[in-house]
Amino acid sequence: MKYIAIMGLGTIGRGVYDLLKENRREIAERLGEEIFVKRILDLRDFPEEEIQRLVTHDVADIIEDPEISVVVETMGGVEPAFSFEIKALNAGKHVCTSNKELVENKGPELFAAARENKVNFFFEASVGGGIPIIRALTGSLTAERVGRVSGILNGTTNYILSSMTNEGGTYEEALNKAMQLGYAERNPAADVEGFDAGRKLAILASIITGRRVCFGEISTEGITGITREDIRYSKELGYSIKLIAEASFEDGAVTALVAPRMVRPESALHPINGVQNGIVVCGNMVGKVLFSGEGAGAYATASAVSADVIEALRRCTETVYSGWSSEKADIRDVSGSRYRYFVRAVGYNQEDYDNALSIFGGGSIINAHIQAEFGLVTPEMTEEEFHKKSGELIGFIKSIRIK
Amino acid sequence: MKYIAIMGLGTIGRGVYDLLKENRREIAERLGEEIFVKRILDLRDFPEEEIQRLVTHDVADIIEDPEISVVVETMGGVEPAFSFEIKALNAGKHVCTSNKELVENKGPELFAAARENKVNFFFEASVGGGIPIIRALTGSLTAERVGRVSGILNGTTNYILSSMTNEGGTYEEALNKAMQLGYAERNPAADVEGFDAGRKLAILASIITGRRVCFGEISTEGITGITREDIRYSKELGYSIKLIAEASFEDGAVTALVAPRMVRPESALHPINGVQNGIVVCGNMVGKVLFSGEGAGAYATASAVSADVIEALRRCTETVYSGWSSEKADIRDVSGSRYRYFVRAVGYNQEDYDNALSIFGGGSIINAHIQAEFGLVTPEMTEEEFHKKSGELIGFIKSIRIK
Repeated sequence: MKYIAIMGLGTIGRGVYDLLKENRREIAERLGEEIFVKRILDLRDFPEEEIQRLVTHDVADIIEDPEISVVVETMGGVEPAFSFEIKALNAGKHVCTSNKELVENKGPELFAAARENKVNFFFEASVGGGIPIIRALTGSLTAERVGRVSGILNGTTNYILSSMTNEGGTYEEALNKAMQLGYAERNPAADVEGFDAGRKLAILASIITGRRVCFGEISTEGITGITREDIRYSKELGYSIKLIAEASFEDGAVTALVAPRMVRPESALHPINGVQNGIVVCGNMVGKVLFSGEGAGAYATASAVSADVIEALRRCTETVYSGWSSEKADIRDVSGSRYRYFVRAVGYNQEDYDNALSIFGGGSIINAHIQAEFGLVTPEMTEEEFHKKSGELIGFIKSIRIK
Repeated sequence: MKYIAIMGLGTIGRGVYDLLKENRREIAERLGEEIFVKRILDLRDFPEEEIQRLVTHDVADIIEDPEISVVVETMGGVEPAFSFEIKALNAGKHVCTSNKELVENKGPELFAAARENKVNFFFEASVGGGIPIIRALTGSLTAERVGRVSGILNGTTNYILSSMTNEGGTYEEALNKAMQLGYAERNPAADVEGFDAGRKLAILASIITGRRVCFGEISTEGITGITREDIRYSKELGYSIKLIAEASFEDGAVTALVAPRMVRPESALHPINGVQNGIVVCGNMVGKVLFSGEGAGAYATASAVSADVIEALRRCTETVYSGWSSEKADIRDVSGSRYRYFVRAVGYNQEDYDNALSIFGGGSIINAHIQAEFGLVTPEMTEEEFHKKSGELIGFIKSIRIK
């Protein structure tokens, strides 16, 4: 019999509690022991519910209880989650969390505390919800030189873009629908501005390099500027617009970008629609491996947290993954990255088209039947070259990188 | 510095040797030590090559060398691989293998020997090549009640079916092309009859149930009967024909089937083409998770074997995964499984169509412009019902289950 505690009874914390109950038998069979939730830390009381008997408002009730061997932190945010986790690790308890903000901000400190105390700090649920991407990188693709990781890491934005594509509505209409369905929060900035995807990309890049990649250093563009017209062009091309988080690794340096991209149908990320997440890891030996599934949702995320709990209980005596160092990774800006670009420009006739084609050195014209404008797909060039050339294009409206 | 040995210098064994050399720096960084291949067991000599100095024809040179801590077995087949692996495990060495036939046949004995000697027996490369599906099941989706696993587990057959679809050729033409490209063996029976996929499915089902699922008990149909006409119908429907290995789990019993299926475009396996493999795991909490990538090929497979070696060296003092028991899983035959079916039948006119629709209790007619015949998609029914009804259909040509 093993006891755990849950800090933060929000959607995910409650999901973990429910899952451990629902799948008690399967988990006991695999682990050889039953897992019980002994304590739940929350600011609130839940007087109408059975779980109230487990609720405490004092973190010491968890830290000082020697029977509790694993702490699940599903509070979110940096503080007080960080202090609580450090206390738990120092008390010899394993910590499993879904808190991406904390992992991205304080990873090295938490790994160090776990190593010192010979316990585990696991965070599978912090990226990709129920998709086991963290353990794939830390335990499975370990013989690879990873050249690139590309993902749809945010379900809210993917839902909004899919909805705009399928229903032809505006960004605002799609966002409203996502809010109604509970896929977007009241304040959707963290999702729609690409911050959530950026944090997750920082975590993946930190694992891959073994050094700290800070979210703040990642170029991040959101989807708030995507319009119905952009979607019309993407359909005309047979592409789909998705918020892509991508990092590439070369000579020890990281180039990372979160931005809406026009995704070609050949891409493994093209069929990832709605609230699904998908991640492609490109290794020098294995080629491309795709992982996809539910990137959010209480139960999918709880599944990842619970798998961490099981792994921590199985590996009670050693630190399985020692994390990335506090040393910062070398970050390159994207000016040298090469893309093809989709460009919208004002123009009416062959002369306008020819002018644009000559500026970009070729490409192809797309007509989405939008008055007084046209689209263009450029040849591949660096960001720097593109900025220069697009500055020369009179009537330039906007551009979206192609993936 | 850690020493390993490779038994069997075929495509995969050589891939492991090359990979450990090519990615030496990355691996040393992650493991904290360098890995060297000290011995290679093979029947042949390689006098022209640098590796000849490592070659031995005597397994004792490996078993009795205390410096060798991990043995990679890439010989294939049950014997002598089994005896060699048991010797290695009993000598306190970890064993990592790509040998699916051995894992399927002798898994419980190998796990028992690993447990007794407190070492690891790993077999990530036995299913899905470079796709980390084994560790996903043993280490990541451990909090799930898995209801179903469905996969395209054989790259050769997927290549043949994709080629028939893209190029419109016959089965024989596509098989010939696969042989020319090295995707199919001289004797392709193990692939095209579904045996390879069946063995891999047996391994996945054994992990999921924790009991032995024998390949011999899995209903297996190959792709040799798939014709150009079948492909024409699948295109007419917007479906694609793929060899699907699928097992479902209910009340402790397993229902498993390897068979060509008409795959609907909504299926996560629909975009898996060519030599790619794809596996969908359906859990009661996580929903559907898709894993896809190169299912074969020297380097992709070597990547999985090498990751196992790294994991074994990291977990030197404990048995990480203790495997499935020798007790046989309860296998249900497919007669109670429910599918929709695609049916081809002789017929010319509305009367024939109406007759077929009335026998199957509805459905839809497909016209692929093939003389004197028509296609039909039935409503969902059990295999048993379907066999009864299709027996009543005069002019029945063939059927393919829909996924």
